[in-house]
This record gives sequence, C-alpha cells and structure tokens, in this order.
Amino acid sequence: MTLKSSARLYLTIFLMTTCIYMVLYQYHISRTQILPDASTEIKPPLYIITPTYKRPEQLAELTRLGYTLKHVSNLLWLVIEDSKTPSELVTKRLHHIAVPFIHLVAPMPEQYRKSKAMPRGVSNRNRGLEWLRANATEGVFYFADDDNTYDISIFEQMRYTKKVSMWPVGLVTRLGVSSPIVRNGQLDGFYDGWIGGRKYPVDMAGFAVSVKFLLERPNAKMPYKAGYEEDGFLKSLSPLNKTEIELLASSCTEVLTWHTQTKKNPVAAKLNVTKYSGTNLLKLTEALVGK
Amino acid sequence: MTLKSSARLYLTIFLMTTCIYMVLYQYHISRTQILPDASTEIKPPLYIITPTYKRPEQLAELTRLGYTLKHVSNLLWLVIEDSKTPSELVTKRLHHIAVPFIHLVAPMPEQYRKSKAMPRGVSNRNRGLEWLRANATEGVFYFADDDNTYDISIFEQMRYTKKVSMWPVGLVTRLGVSSPIVRNGQLDGFYDGWIGGRKYPVDMAGFAVSVKFLLERPNAKMPYKAGYEEDGFLKSLSPLNKTEIELLASSCTEVLTWHTQTKKNPVAAKLNVTKYSGTNLLKLTEALVGK
Repeated sequence: MTLKSSARLYLTIFLMTTCIYMVLYQYHISRTQILPDASTEIKPPLYIITPTYKRPEQLAELTRLGYTLKHVSNLLWLVIEDSKTPSELVTKRLHHIAVPFIHLVAPMPEQYRKSKAMPRGVSNRNRGLEWLRANATEGVFYFADDDNTYDISIFEQMRYTKKVSMWPVGLVTRLGVSSPIVRNGQLDGFYDGWIGGRKYPVDMAGFAVSVKFLLERPNAKMPYKAGYEEDGFLKSLSPLNKTEIELLASSCTEVLTWHTQTKKNPVAAKLNVTKYSGTNLLKLTEALVGK
Repeated sequence: MTLKSSARLYLTIFLMTTCIYMVLYQYHISRTQILPDASTEIKPPLYIITPTYKRPEQLAELTRLGYTLKHVSNLLWLVIEDSKTPSELVTKRLHHIAVPFIHLVAPMPEQYRKSKAMPRGVSNRNRGLEWLRANATEGVFYFADDDNTYDISIFEQMRYTKKVSMWPVGLVTRLGVSSPIVRNGQLDGFYDGWIGGRKYPVDMAGFAVSVKFLLERPNAKMPYKAGYEEDGFLKSLSPLNKTEIELLASSCTEVLTWHTQTKKNPVAAKLNVTKYSGTNLLKLTEALVGK
C-alpha cells in the first residue's frame, strides 16, 4: 500500500465514523423532539366568552380573570365590550395580560338600555356565538363573566363536553349555591334560590356547551330577558334531553366556580390639573380613565 | 504493514474519531445546560403576607389571588387566618391552588373585636412579621389582601426593594386612586382621598419592604388602630428618609394594584336535609361550609 492510498483509507475510516455519529445524533435529536410532543397532546379548544362594559373596576376585573385563564392551555378568550368602539385601555390591558384573545364590540340595543332590569351581556354573548359560528368547528364554549371566580380544574373538565355540561356555582341567591340536583347519579332537578318558572334554573357560570352541538342548532341564541338569559339560551338548544346533560365537579359535589360580585366604585373625582401640573398624577389619570 | 497492524491502525482511527465526537457532544451538553441556568437566575425571594378570615367569599378570594401569585417565581405565600385554629377548607384549598405557602393563625385579641372600627388583619400581619424575623434573611415582603387585584409586573418590580418602595393603588377613596406624588422625579407628598394627619397616607396594597431593613428594626410592627395601620407600621420603620423611598410603576404613572372589594354575601340558608337526603347537596354543603 502506498502512503497516498493508506492516507485515503484513513480518511475514509474517519469519514465513515463521522457518518455513523451524525446518524446517531440525528436519531437522538428526533427522539428528544418526539418525546415532549407525546406528553403535550393537543386538547380540544376552549372558547371563553366574556362580556364586559366600562366602569371603574373593569381593568382590574379583566386582569384578575386573565391571570386565571392564563393557566389553561389551548384557550381563546373572546372579550366583548358593550360599546360602539373598542376601548384603548382594554386593548392595551389584554395585550399586557397576554392570554390569546379576540377583542370585539357589541353595544346593547338602545331599547333595552331604558328597561328597568337591563339584560346586560346579552348582545355581547350573542356576538360571541356569531363569532363561533363563523370561526370555530370544534371544542367547547363557556360564558365567563369578568367578576366571577373560577377554579382552573373546571376548565379541564368542561373541555370534553359532548353536548351540554353543568356543575354547581357558589355564592348565588340566598341558598349560597346553585346546582343541579343529582340523585342516583342522574339529574333530578335544580337547587336554586329562585326558580321563576324556568326549565333550567342555572347560573351563567354553571354550564358549558360543545361548539359542534351549537353549530347543529343555527337558531340558538340568548334572549333579551333579564333573569331568563340562561334558561332562554339553553331552551334554544333544543332538542336536548335532560339525560344528555353531563354532570361535572365530581357529580356536582364540589364548588369550582363562584358568582363573586365586586363592590361598585363611584366614578373618580376630577384631578385638579393646575395644582398637580408637572407631577405623575396627570399620566396616572390617563392610565385610569383613558385620554 | 501486516494485515494485523493495519487493522489496529484502522481501529485506532475509529476510536480517535469516536473520542473527538464524544468530547464535542459533552461540550454540546454542557452548553445546553449552562444556557437555561443563565436565563433563570434565582431572584430575591418574595414573601406575600395575606390576612384572611372566615366568610362566604373566603375560598373564592383565596383561589383568585392564588392564581395571580402562581405566575410569580420564588414566592412564598404566608396565609394567616384570623382564627384560633386553621380551617380545614382553607388548608385543602391552599394545597389545591399549589402556590408554595405557609398557613398560620393569629386571632384578633378579644378587646378589639368589640371596637366599632375593627382593626382587621393587624394580628395576622404582625404574625407574618414575626414569622419573617424567625425564618427570613433576605428578599422583600408585601401585605396583599385576598380581595385586591394585582398586576404580576408589580411583584417583579418590588422584588428588588432596598428599603421601602411605593406605587399607586387604584379604586381607593373618592379620588379613585391613592398615589405618591412625584415631582421632578422626587417624592413630593401623597395623593389620597383621606389624609387624616398621617405621615404616610398610603394604602396597604401600595408599598413593599426589604426583609433586611425590617430585621434591622426589631420593634417595627403594625398598630391596632383602624385607618392608621399603614401609617403606624411605616412610622415604626424609622429611621427612614423620604428620599430613600423607591418609586415604582414607572415613577408612579401606572396602576398595577387595585383595591377591589367583593360584595358581601349573607350566610347561606340551611339545607333541608330530609328533602335532599340521597343527593349531591349534602356533600356540596360540606364543600361550602365545612363539616
């Protein structure tokens, strides 16, 4: 063997060995990419419809709810303002909270603004349903008001709803809770401080609905009827057999959602602009009420 | 060269190449381990002192606050009940929320329970300070009531407090906000709907204190004096020069904490045990009010 041919042979061995390790390394990389994928299977999407309106507590409420939703994966937050145009402060805050969101507006029709019991949130929720009909094909949706409190485990449970699921809501009416009554594992009526002739005496925070099920009911929507919003909407989902309602929260024995309400604050007194010119308070007022 | 000696040479080249790649791989691994470590430096610990007491909204409030704190790293939550013994429902909920916590009790002394304006939360907060003196050496502490609302960025800002830091609190008093007044980058008084002769007219949610600074002031504590809790505590941290107070939230131009208050709910009406025997409602009542 000449020196040249043996050098070529050594180089060949070197290159072949390199090839072997490159193949091994590629295999190693492909496996490390497969493993995490397997453990984080993609769950059905959750659509959270939150009606909101301008008031001193609004930004605080959205912040607080947002931090709860931020713990839940594959979730899209539909924040729908009762307003003609989206508020800049709300948009800024939603970007800051950084939960995936869609920001829409749906002003309440003028005739209902004059009624004694305003059907608040109805135009917003119906706008949410309209968005779902146009954009969603699977998963589950839920009406989550911005002042309520949610245990994150309820989101994981409702995510697999086939038609309609229900569970207890704490802190509602004089009974302190609103819940389906479960007897022998079956839905056997409703426990709620106010029945009012309703077929479904449940709280807005107490049920979730499958998107597919909604899409099969093109006329389903929420009525402008204070006190009967939930009942009217659930009835519009007909046909729905009571035996088909899925009972979550360990057969309705746990409280995982609470109808909390925040104390209203009066609109803030005006800042004395002359006295406080040249201070932080001018910018601070903007942060509170907008420009 | 014999066949045997050339085989040995090929093997040597193979092994040497293997060695080169093993060294390269080790280097690769060592780098991938160093990089995340560098980005997740350990931040100074944050101690969040939350006084709480039994009421229908308690579990909801703790849940909601817990989910905000859960977004903050290296945080220890001191939950201190105004109670003689820890409540089982609270313990269970704290484990469920899964923020690192210490659960303590500190009943309000009997004489203050009779006073018209109860100094609520004082025994709890002083118990928190006592725990810090016995267990903490560095970091920062903050009094966070369970009904307030917090933007998580304030936690990252307060974490580096050297002595005392302050910032605005929204939704307090008729002014809608309580804040240090900043003029030319300096603290120039306080903007608060009620001054009441206080040296520090600030809200409980508006300041944080360094643990080291507290430890150097062995007599610092909160007085049992309704309306003067913050002022009394901050005065007990003397000596503290006003120029040493750090002004957070972009020189007090942003609202990152809100004094939200939750509407009180009456104690729930008793369940008719006969009527609802054999249903989920018995267990549900336990989940709401304990055994």
